[in-house]
Amino acid sequence: MPAMFDPTTKNQPIAKLLLGQLDEITLIFERQLASELSAVNGLCLHIEQYRGKMLRPTLVLLSGLAATGDSDARAVLTARHHTIGAVVEMIHMATLVHDDILDEADVRRQGATVSHLWGNEAAVMLGDYLISNAFHLCSSLGDPSINLALGEVTNTLCEGELAQLHHRNDYALDEHTYYAIIRRKTASLIGESCRLGAKLAGADEDIIGILHRAGTDLGIAFQIQDDLLDLIGDEGIVGKTLGKDLDKGKMTLPVIRHLDTASQHERGEALELIERADVDALRPILVDSGAVDYTVAAARSFVDEAKAQLACLPSGPAGDLFNTLANSVISRKY
Amino acid sequence: MPAMFDPTTKNQPIAKLLLGQLDEITLIFERQLASELSAVNGLCLHIEQYRGKMLRPTLVLLSGLAATGDSDARAVLTARHHTIGAVVEMIHMATLVHDDILDEADVRRQGATVSHLWGNEAAVMLGDYLISNAFHLCSSLGDPSINLALGEVTNTLCEGELAQLHHRNDYALDEHTYYAIIRRKTASLIGESCRLGAKLAGADEDIIGILHRAGTDLGIAFQIQDDLLDLIGDEGIVGKTLGKDLDKGKMTLPVIRHLDTASQHERGEALELIERADVDALRPILVDSGAVDYTVAAARSFVDEAKAQLACLPSGPAGDLFNTLANSVISRKY
Repeated sequence: MPAMFDPTTKNQPIAKLLLGQLDEITLIFERQLASELSAVNGLCLHIEQYRGKMLRPTLVLLSGLAATGDSDARAVLTARHHTIGAVVEMIHMATLVHDDILDEADVRRQGATVSHLWGNEAAVMLGDYLISNAFHLCSSLGDPSINLALGEVTNTLCEGELAQLHHRNDYALDEHTYYAIIRRKTASLIGESCRLGAKLAGADEDIIGILHRAGTDLGIAFQIQDDLLDLIGDEGIVGKTLGKDLDKGKMTLPVIRHLDTASQHERGEALELIERADVDALRPILVDSGAVDYTVAAARSFVDEAKAQLACLPSGPAGDLFNTLANSVISRKY
Repeated sequence: MPAMFDPTTKNQPIAKLLLGQLDEITLIFERQLASELSAVNGLCLHIEQYRGKMLRPTLVLLSGLAATGDSDARAVLTARHHTIGAVVEMIHMATLVHDDILDEADVRRQGATVSHLWGNEAAVMLGDYLISNAFHLCSSLGDPSINLALGEVTNTLCEGELAQLHHRNDYALDEHTYYAIIRRKTASLIGESCRLGAKLAGADEDIIGILHRAGTDLGIAFQIQDDLLDLIGDEGIVGKTLGKDLDKGKMTLPVIRHLDTASQHERGEALELIERADVDALRPILVDSGAVDYTVAAARSFVDEAKAQLACLPSGPAGDLFNTLANSVISRKY
């Protein structure tokens, strides 16, 4: 999957620099996971399939640059940025691996079509190995405040996942609770990636706070967009099966909004499709009712909020690229 | 489940003191997991069922005392011992919760008899919440060297679990690899509990090393005994279904030894029972062939090794209780 920005844009020099630094982060990532046991290395190869956009390490780097207004990555970004970039990506990939665990119900329902090459247990252990290595790598920096901050973030992230699970098939889930969940499970780590990027660049507390808030808002927008794509995306472009949230009884913003504003009859009709996880039948209803537009507007408002924060930073090419990236969070089709 | 020692023994005063300190550790444990989200607290109640003997926190405390030869826990043991006690118990319980994850194959085979009250996904997230909180709590001590050491141990522990999974249904698994696995998945954390207990009590490096080695040997003996009980224990006393290892294709020492020493005919017979996970039919064969005696002797040799190490420590009631505990690792029936 391509990075979150296009190195051929007008931000070419800095984008190219960042891509080079992402390669360094990938090396640290791989070196950290290497084991003296060949059995472990063999299983780690499966992690490759979860490789994605590297949004979080990108934000660590970009926040470091944007915090100082400096476009020269070599002058601002330290080896600590690379380490933290690998750490946040490891945490993120652990959540992806663990999100793939199937429940008894799913296994039974999907029967022989379960397309897992390897079992639940390997996914659990591999995810644990990623989490453990993330904390170990983080500890290698020798700064207890970073350990504590990342521990708080992973606690929060897990709370979000647990709350989401608790509200499975909760058709009465309201927007407030939806935001409480995505703020924890997604925005907390993205916000922290920005905060740490700025902090490691030696930025002032107010600048660090700005990037923390901007990152958190972007994280919320990112999750709203992810949830939206699962309902109305183009399967070929998204690159994964659509309707997975419905399938798992996960109520997301378009659905919550539609149920909130529908007549009693429409509500009954929608609930039937939701229970059947019939995404193809539900899609036009969500579009026609305006629930999709409402969701798009909600995501945009968080991106706008993030951009308003970013506007307070020293201007420069890093800030420009950050803005481009902020837009791509909701313009992306995958 | 009762603690690893009996407070009515001749070591009464110190055993009582330790029980009181274990209660403090339990309080820290519960306080750490408390969430502002009621959904999370509701799910955390399920963790109760995994509460066990608290071997690891007991060893943190006992190692602190034994390292200094001091029987007055209040003088030697600090709040840091309690924190680390809660941390190692949290890590251990995370592994228990994650070990309960069922694979597609198991789910299908066990069908409706799967006795899980809650699904795989909740178990994954709850285990993650425990791991994350363990690292967060550990970070609260503000000592990067402890974070780094525990991160190394959890890496090692995960490697052991991954290697074990890799060798599932590997009927050619040899003793060397069996020990490489249990050393990582069990002995590493138990050894580290002892090492940290001594270190936090301000012990000298050589004393810390002695307790580290003794704990590691005890951990190996503990796992051998666990594996043995799964084959020849009394289900009513062990408190869990026997034969789970066979069921999961996990080769343990009695089985490895029997296959190693059996004639070709006996080997074929045993393999058939192993594949069918017929623990009742396999049990008398392992007893008659001497594989059980061999395993008992192996566990005892590690306990003896641990006790030889402990004999180098300053003498006192803590050392005596540690010896009693070492014996109970292999005399236990559950």
